Amino acid sequence: MGILNGTTNFILTKMSEEGAEYGEALAEAQELGFAERDPTADVEGYDAGAKAAIIASIAFGAKVVAGDVYHEGISGITAGDIAVAKRLGYVVKLLGIAERDAETGEIAVRVHPAMVPTTHPLASVRESFNAVFVEGDAVGQLMFYGRGAGGAPTASAVLGDLIDAAVNLDKGTHGSLGTFAKAKIRAIDETSAEYLLSLDVADEPGVLHAVTGAFAQHDVSIRAAEQEGIGPDARLVFITHSAREADVQATVKHLRDLSVVRRIGGFIRVIGS
Amino acid sequence: MGILNGTTNFILTKMSEEGAEYGEALAEAQELGFAERDPTADVEGYDAGAKAAIIASIAFGAKVVAGDVYHEGISGITAGDIAVAKRLGYVVKLLGIAERDAETGEIAVRVHPAMVPTTHPLASVRESFNAVFVEGDAVGQLMFYGRGAGGAPTASAVLGDLIDAAVNLDKGTHGSLGTFAKAKIRAIDETSAEYLLSLDVADEPGVLHAVTGAFAQHDVSIRAAEQEGIGPDARLVFITHSAREADVQATVKHLRDLSVVRRIGGFIRVIGS
Repeated sequence: MGILNGTTNFILTKMSEEGAEYGEALAEAQELGFAERDPTADVEGYDAGAKAAIIASIAFGAKVVAGDVYHEGISGITAGDIAVAKRLGYVVKLLGIAERDAETGEIAVRVHPAMVPTTHPLASVRESFNAVFVEGDAVGQLMFYGRGAGGAPTASAVLGDLIDAAVNLDKGTHGSLGTFAKAKIRAIDETSAEYLLSLDVADEPGVLHAVTGAFAQHDVSIRAAEQEGIGPDARLVFITHSAREADVQATVKHLRDLSVVRRIGGFIRVIGS
Repeated sequence: MGILNGTTNFILTKMSEEGAEYGEALAEAQELGFAERDPTADVEGYDAGAKAAIIASIAFGAKVVAGDVYHEGISGITAGDIAVAKRLGYVVKLLGIAERDAETGEIAVRVHPAMVPTTHPLASVRESFNAVFVEGDAVGQLMFYGRGAGGAPTASAVLGDLIDAAVNLDKGTHGSLGTFAKAKIRAIDETSAEYLLSLDVADEPGVLHAVTGAFAQHDVSIRAAEQEGIGPDARLVFITHSAREADVQATVKHLRDLSVVRRIGGFIRVIGS
């Protein structure tokens, strides 16, 4: 898994370290030339999704294309979400994640904002830097970190790749990746994660009971809950135990239909804890 | 530069995150099998120094041996030093540093405790993990991170190296490093860094004047100064601008001779700021 897009990481760093709202941070990124005038490819996760597909193909030796990648961007992330994450010991990052189920061989590839513990190596990847974090059976955890943009670093990477490719072709080393069979893709619905959910709720008796009932009915177990504010501004923040995406989505739909829930604020997956 | 020794990084992590004193953290590391009964090779920087020599040789194509490496260990670091560093936005790490002077071609290689800004990628390398941080002309900053100890990660690394070496020998790719000419070594005295110095001082008029006079006389410029505590427990903490090691050592000697200085506490180089 990794931070695969420098523009969104720059924006999230500004929001996190300077308390900027998304719109302000995006405008600064555009002024500095990090973000295009139409930032959709970056901020909605298309660019990271395409890179995640390539990484998944190389990592697992199976063909994954951009269309196989579930993606959510950062345009819905608020300064408030980031503040809640910070208070709980997390930073918010846009992550690309590729994983293979050891039993079924299914591959799940997705891009979405995630809460990363501040002690995780990916948490310290700031500004327009990128990093790929690898977990291997024997080797354990590895991370590779460097600039994700800029003329000289890009030229250095491209030249290095070309020289490697030329030597490999000439000497017959490190065979090409060849043609991969199409990967068996596991849909996002079947993946599991922990989730942070924050809800603006009515100031009525029985609210917590109604809300927690929605979680229970869909088999989503709550790891931590807290209430911020009181009266009409009350907000409930939940972190779940690891749960199936489909069950959490059903819970969210259920919560949305409850009359005591005014608005569903943050909905962010939690990783690496 | 990098965190090249897992044992010392484990000890410093315990001191930093749990407020443990050096002796307690070392005892825990010994119980867990991370530190040998005689921990000298790790805690005094010999192991990191040998690795720094290898890294310097490969990085700069010149022969550097362990005896060329200046080293200081972590046995003099106190929980108090780490608390001061934390308050100022730094963590304390044992770093191996290799650098080449672009003009003279001289290579300086050293191992010593260093204050690293909490936002620096090396700051998030915790417990027994290791990492090497590289700065290149075109590529900019890179970091490579992974486990520095343990049976399976070590076996994975050794096997990977053996396979690479076998393929390279067989196919004639990636020529051997060959024989290097002996590096021109720059002595630690001629290197520059920022320094944190903390002094226990007497509660008398003129103390600050006398102390700052010692810095001024040896051309060491002060970037930040603060006083902790009052009366007989007063402690002065200074961070210098970048200064020559020899000048700072002369300043320390001068300070030690001042009657108003009771004790020189922390003396830690600051990097990456």
